[in-house]
Amino acid sequence: MNGAESLINALAEHGVDACFANPGTSEMQLVAALDKQPGIRAVLCLFEGVVTGAADGYGRMADKPALTLLHLGPGFANGIANLHNAQRARSPILNMVGDHAASHLKHDAPLTSDIEGLATPVSRTFQVSESADRLAQTGLNALAASLHYPGSISTFVVPADHAWTDIAPPSYQLPAIQRVSEADTTITEIGDQLKAAANSCLFLGGRALRAEALHQAGRIAAATGCRLVTETFFARQSRGVGRVPTERLAYFGEAAIEQLAGIDLMVLVGAKAPVSFFAYPDKPSVLAPQSATELTLADAESDALDALTRLADYLGAQDNPDVVSEFAQYPLREGHIDASELGKVIANRLPENAIVCDEGATNSLGAFLLTANAAPHDWLTLTGGAIGQGLPLAIGAAIACPDQKIIALEADGSGMYTVQALWTMVREQLDITVVLLNNRSYAILNIELSRVGVEAPGPTALSLLDLSNPDLEWTNIATGMGMRALKVDTVNGLDQAMSEAMVTTGPLLIEVLL
Amino acid sequence: MNGAESLINALAEHGVDACFANPGTSEMQLVAALDKQPGIRAVLCLFEGVVTGAADGYGRMADKPALTLLHLGPGFANGIANLHNAQRARSPILNMVGDHAASHLKHDAPLTSDIEGLATPVSRTFQVSESADRLAQTGLNALAASLHYPGSISTFVVPADHAWTDIAPPSYQLPAIQRVSEADTTITEIGDQLKAAANSCLFLGGRALRAEALHQAGRIAAATGCRLVTETFFARQSRGVGRVPTERLAYFGEAAIEQLAGIDLMVLVGAKAPVSFFAYPDKPSVLAPQSATELTLADAESDALDALTRLADYLGAQDNPDVVSEFAQYPLREGHIDASELGKVIANRLPENAIVCDEGATNSLGAFLLTANAAPHDWLTLTGGAIGQGLPLAIGAAIACPDQKIIALEADGSGMYTVQALWTMVREQLDITVVLLNNRSYAILNIELSRVGVEAPGPTALSLLDLSNPDLEWTNIATGMGMRALKVDTVNGLDQAMSEAMVTTGPLLIEVLL
Repeated sequence: MNGAESLINALAEHGVDACFANPGTSEMQLVAALDKQPGIRAVLCLFEGVVTGAADGYGRMADKPALTLLHLGPGFANGIANLHNAQRARSPILNMVGDHAASHLKHDAPLTSDIEGLATPVSRTFQVSESADRLAQTGLNALAASLHYPGSISTFVVPADHAWTDIAPPSYQLPAIQRVSEADTTITEIGDQLKAAANSCLFLGGRALRAEALHQAGRIAAATGCRLVTETFFARQSRGVGRVPTERLAYFGEAAIEQLAGIDLMVLVGAKAPVSFFAYPDKPSVLAPQSATELTLADAESDALDALTRLADYLGAQDNPDVVSEFAQYPLREGHIDASELGKVIANRLPENAIVCDEGATNSLGAFLLTANAAPHDWLTLTGGAIGQGLPLAIGAAIACPDQKIIALEADGSGMYTVQALWTMVREQLDITVVLLNNRSYAILNIELSRVGVEAPGPTALSLLDLSNPDLEWTNIATGMGMRALKVDTVNGLDQAMSEAMVTTGPLLIEVLL
Repeated sequence: MNGAESLINALAEHGVDACFANPGTSEMQLVAALDKQPGIRAVLCLFEGVVTGAADGYGRMADKPALTLLHLGPGFANGIANLHNAQRARSPILNMVGDHAASHLKHDAPLTSDIEGLATPVSRTFQVSESADRLAQTGLNALAASLHYPGSISTFVVPADHAWTDIAPPSYQLPAIQRVSEADTTITEIGDQLKAAANSCLFLGGRALRAEALHQAGRIAAATGCRLVTETFFARQSRGVGRVPTERLAYFGEAAIEQLAGIDLMVLVGAKAPVSFFAYPDKPSVLAPQSATELTLADAESDALDALTRLADYLGAQDNPDVVSEFAQYPLREGHIDASELGKVIANRLPENAIVCDEGATNSLGAFLLTANAAPHDWLTLTGGAIGQGLPLAIGAAIACPDQKIIALEADGSGMYTVQALWTMVREQLDITVVLLNNRSYAILNIELSRVGVEAPGPTALSLLDLSNPDLEWTNIATGMGMRALKVDTVNGLDQAMSEAMVTTGPLLIEVLL
């Protein structure tokens, strides 16, 4: 066997079963090794931002890493923005980056680049293979690091000669993976303060938003009267009928400050204290009241379910929450589509166990709010603010959960960043419905322009925020990548399209003119 | 005025006249300042790889930098691959990156990132604005650095509060820009060795491939009998009727070694000694004969035209080269299109002063060879190997040279990386003909798979190199971005399409089925 085969086999033996790939010449031996390994599903993406965004979606749903296959520094670089988002989501990802043969590096050939420099800002660990013999162990070290709770990004470099060199079958071992639990004193102190507080909340993020953890949070709310507030942008939240409902913190700072006004105790669970997304002249960055006490029950790297369960038990909470979401069906208004009607259609039609990948920007909030009372589902958001995440995320979720319907709520401006994702959805025949929200502008920026104090913008400013001239015709773009596509501009048309899409399988794009 | 206005005004005063932009909230004040500055053409791109690739094309043709406008670390990251190419092309580029207000950074909001870490690998200089008062000077320092001969990438960061803070009109000054000339002793030594050598070549790259420099190289060839060999991937070469012809070094190492066999003296002018693009098992990285003497007449940062002129004069060379290219018209073969017939059509139809942006990969070599005898033109190549450069490069060339026809020879696989470029071509009504070479595969990788010794690849390996299933329909993709598009699959059809495209203006995509 060669080094590449030893590596790919070791990863497959230890549970890696998906690889999102955009290989080049220096990765041909890795491609050949994947070819011989039936345990890993290799998925070609036509741009590296799709690769890393898909790995993020896979990691959020599978709670284990997908492998990526990237071509030297520039290939890695194209994936950085979605790795930034994945880092904020604390998704496990295992980046495998090909590089020149070690002996070739000194010649500074055109593709030679500072891979370590590029990778470090978005990788918890970075390693370069030392030899063909040690390549499999390097891969397993990176795999173990990526499983650091709740997940992290590991990047390792495979010099081409380590991949192609023949070796004897090497020995290797997956390093142990540890998980942090909170001390008993933390639990009791926070429990006592919650009992004493008049207006408290749990501020929930990360793994605290999974169904079981929310169940425990609901017990705590029943025992103490605390509110359950979530991060504005979370990796994954279990929602819908039977789940414990939460309040999502508002995006705009003014609204968030108003939402948190009067809170005297904020208990952080899997989340940091909330801050505004951007700074604005003369507005505060910190959103909780200055007078509020902030206590950390579990930081992002501590076991949130364990801490919530122990806290609920310490409080002597009843076994079940007082409040869980109930089903609601929303009557539709006929006519043009707006965020509210869109939300009603999505909520009404959402099938059980659906996964919603939300990069709908200004127009998806209605759908988020109304689906609180839809069938049970998972909701995934844009955690790092780097747009172009939604379509790739849907790919990864679909590969991780092939029996669940994926809905990608995608804005036109964001969708264009990684539009190549549509092709992979078709190639892999993934069960994804892309609901493409086409308002022909970077609508959020038109709002922001006035919020930062720019009055009476002129034609240049407006043109930089406008996506018309020419109009993007998403049905044509999708068809060009082999994807079936419909265009709707009435509530009834949208409802019919969604009705069909939710009961059939396979990739479909519904372009929604707003 | 505010800091943003002082900066944009200072840059416009010092010759910056184009800005490729993909702004976000933290750049709204810069957008507003551009809005008030009629001297800078602001061009919206729907993805940052288009921004930086366009800036590369602009820099290669204008010999001065375009400004880019990028949104924090993730926005910069999306532009890195094409900055890598631009760095290899030694293009002047001035990257302006917005960031959070300085006071907001410590809160680690979702878009906070290590901009310096990401920027350093692809920037010659990196600076962060110190204050609103000094922002204009920071911009001018970066501008001066980008003009370091023959050009380099300068990146500077604009914290949002420096942009929005009101200031008194500041004073500022463009730092001096120096250019390196070779010492007289270098000229005379190389001249003497060239006279004595039996089988010498000039190995030309960078600015040595402009028409005037090639004229001097032609004089040297006439005086000494040396060959004129160029880099495989050069930033810009003046070619066609009346220009001094050159030999382009072959891409594959074996062919390059054969091409250089017997050379006893290689004189480097604006280029480093040639090395193979990738390493392969048991094949050398260095391509020139071990026995050859290598001398540097001008490295990439020395004035190549000056050095060549002085060398020709020292040699007592005649005023004009012996050989310049003459016009040839190629008869076409009817039927399906291959690289050779494609090349003939391009060569026959190329209008005077055209600019060819070549990312045609396996299928553009024929066009390159045959256009040696076409109308005078410039040829731009993929200098850094990071695909996704061609379409953005064409945008930048078109903005720099609005009266010249641009031909983007683009491969299907490469084109998908920055497909969003088509939209900007339409928005700006650029005179670009995209000749999209659709062979429905990463053809180069199929070749490379066997070259690295992979025999009998299976279905997984083949699927990772294959772009069919589904087929990319480029006419649909282009139409979806508002671009007129034709599909041709015969030589005659291609010839008719090119004939029309070359005598009309405006954006057009011709999808060529190969």
